[in-house]
Amino acid sequence: MAVMPQTLDIPVPVRWTDLDAYGHVNNAAMVRLLEEARIAAFWPPSPEQLALGAIPPPAELPAGGAGSELATVIASQRIEYPRQLGHRRDGVIVRLWLSRIGGASLTADYLVLTRDDPEGEAPYARARTVMVMIDADAGTPVRLPQELRDSLQAFAGPPLAFRD
Amino acid sequence: MAVMPQTLDIPVPVRWTDLDAYGHVNNAAMVRLLEEARIAAFWPPSPEQLALGAIPPPAELPAGGAGSELATVIASQRIEYPRQLGHRRDGVIVRLWLSRIGGASLTADYLVLTRDDPEGEAPYARARTVMVMIDADAGTPVRLPQELRDSLQAFAGPPLAFRD
Amino acid sequence: MAVMPQTLDIPVPVRWTDLDAYGHVNNAAMVRLLEEARIAAFWPPSPEQLALGAIPPPAELPAGGAGSELATVIASQRIEYPRQLGHRRDGVIVRLWLSRIGGASLTADYLVLTRDDPEGEAPYARARTVMVMIDADAGTPVRLPQELRDSLQAFAGPPLAFRD
Amino acid sequence: MAVMPQTLDIPVPVRWTDLDAYGHVNNAAMVRLLEEARIAAFWPPSPEQLALGAIPPPAELPAGGAGSELATVIASQRIEYPRQLGHRRDGVIVRLWLSRIGGASLTADYLVLTRDDPEGEAPYARARTVMVMIDADAGTPVRLPQELRDSLQAFAGPPLAFRD
Repeated sequence: MAVMPQTLDIPVPVRWTDLDAYGHVNNAAMVRLLEEARIAAFWPPSPEQLALGAIPPPAELPAGGAGSELATVIASQRIEYPRQLGHRRDGVIVRLWLSRIGGASLTADYLVLTRDDPEGEAPYARARTVMVMIDADAGTPVRLPQELRDSLQAFAGPPLAFRD
Repeated sequence: MAVMPQTLDIPVPVRWTDLDAYGHVNNAAMVRLLEEARIAAFWPPSPEQLALGAIPPPAELPAGGAGSELATVIASQRIEYPRQLGHRRDGVIVRLWLSRIGGASLTADYLVLTRDDPEGEAPYARARTVMVMIDADAGTPVRLPQELRDSLQAFAGPPLAFRD
Repeated sequence: MAVMPQTLDIPVPVRWTDLDAYGHVNNAAMVRLLEEARIAAFWPPSPEQLALGAIPPPAELPAGGAGSELATVIASQRIEYPRQLGHRRDGVIVRLWLSRIGGASLTADYLVLTRDDPEGEAPYARARTVMVMIDADAGTPVRLPQELRDSLQAFAGPPLAFRD
Repeated sequence: MAVMPQTLDIPVPVRWTDLDAYGHVNNAAMVRLLEEARIAAFWPPSPEQLALGAIPPPAELPAGGAGSELATVIASQRIEYPRQLGHRRDGVIVRLWLSRIGGASLTADYLVLTRDDPEGEAPYARARTVMVMIDADAGTPVRLPQELRDSLQAFAGPPLAFRD
């Protein structure tokens, strides 16, 4: 697969405790790596951290939490594990893009890569997360603001095809 | 959904650290609950633990590990989160069955339920894991032995339909 | 060490993902097992869970969380790992007692045991947690109510001696 | 506390899932951050990763694993939590030094700091880990080679004083 200009390449460290007793990154730990990439891509640092030089994400989604009006929840995920990943001191690169920008939902597709594979030819995981924006109090879906939809278009890309 | 006689209902404790900062079981932690259910369903205790009274699983899959000839690896997973799960001191019930017994692969479908929902009407997760049996040295798929296939038929059931 | 009548023996399941790549329960995962035991010992199930038959803990500490006036925070921990623990399908028994009931603090001592060692002669961990009760808003220490101190006396026991 | 020249300052990312339901880094997750720092400080990347530009650690300890003759195991840990740590997109700095280089053991002391506190005046954790080098087959302690002891002297520093 060629490098796609719209994707975000997020470096995510692998922890020793992500490995299971077979010495491979555990299947659920891989889902955690996707989560870290998603947070780095779409949720802002705190004002204090920005003041200290933290870099704001390229696009901002509502995070929820105390006092929030909107929250983003995970509706579904799917993931394929084509190869087993060992301990990488240099971590992984999670390549992330939006394969669908819906009315109240966003679909992120991912490839989990290593630094020696910039073309993304041998991913360790291929994955997808559907996120839904909700009203934090009522728990009901909320339409994505047009301004947010416009800013997210910069990260749009074609959907992955899954085998199963 | 009616209770299906072929399913396994595996009680799985929820840990405090499965919760994220919003007070809900994290999306990746839910994948860990599935893994615990799968291990309880299909992998045997050690001989020492059996001697102490541990109950063998209803069907045994090859686990891999040092000296093993066969191993079972996760090829893919998918999961939907219809409702958010808080801290449950009584844990969850993972209802598990085999929706496909293939040549070298097994597909487990799951509902994550609570004890007050024996009918499985309001699951907290609906999920599927495709497992592939491999030769532990070569890493190549291995055909499931007929005897194992026969014993696994007792847990066969219809596949879940996923939305996305 | 003889069984002490004041101790609480809390069964805590071991998860597959508690193991690290050497096949042993990871040092930080062991700290999680202590936490699960502490929660089972001292924090109550929700009213809904009690209605479903959940068993209240023998003594209740303030948990904190939204709307709480008091919270219990961890001030310090220490742990020794005399032996390495593998995957136990029957989990561990965390033996827990209070080695000190202070003005605003409680000290819990623990032995992590297996079911085949009711005398506690070969623990997998020996540990201690100092908890401090605080005012949830101000973050300042709060004196333990006398009624709570009295009920906690039932779990008082002698302190462990640590090597380092 | 003044900056000590012998210490190693290891940046360690904080994950979203390190937070518990109160929005703070969980007490056991903090122990994981120490582990990540220790691994970065003392265990080498794989030859493949070195070839890709990974930086070797300033001193190397035996890691164990398949085929190893020596392994390093954790004998004990202690940790104090003076302040609660929230989600830091810029992670933490784990300041690490060796407070004791024994015959068969090493003691690492740590301060967990944030980037805005280079002087280490307001640590989020103060901790200590005692590691023992063992023969991987026999499980018995092994004397640290003199060459290793010499190279580790560069990281020697005074021991922390703990309160409890």
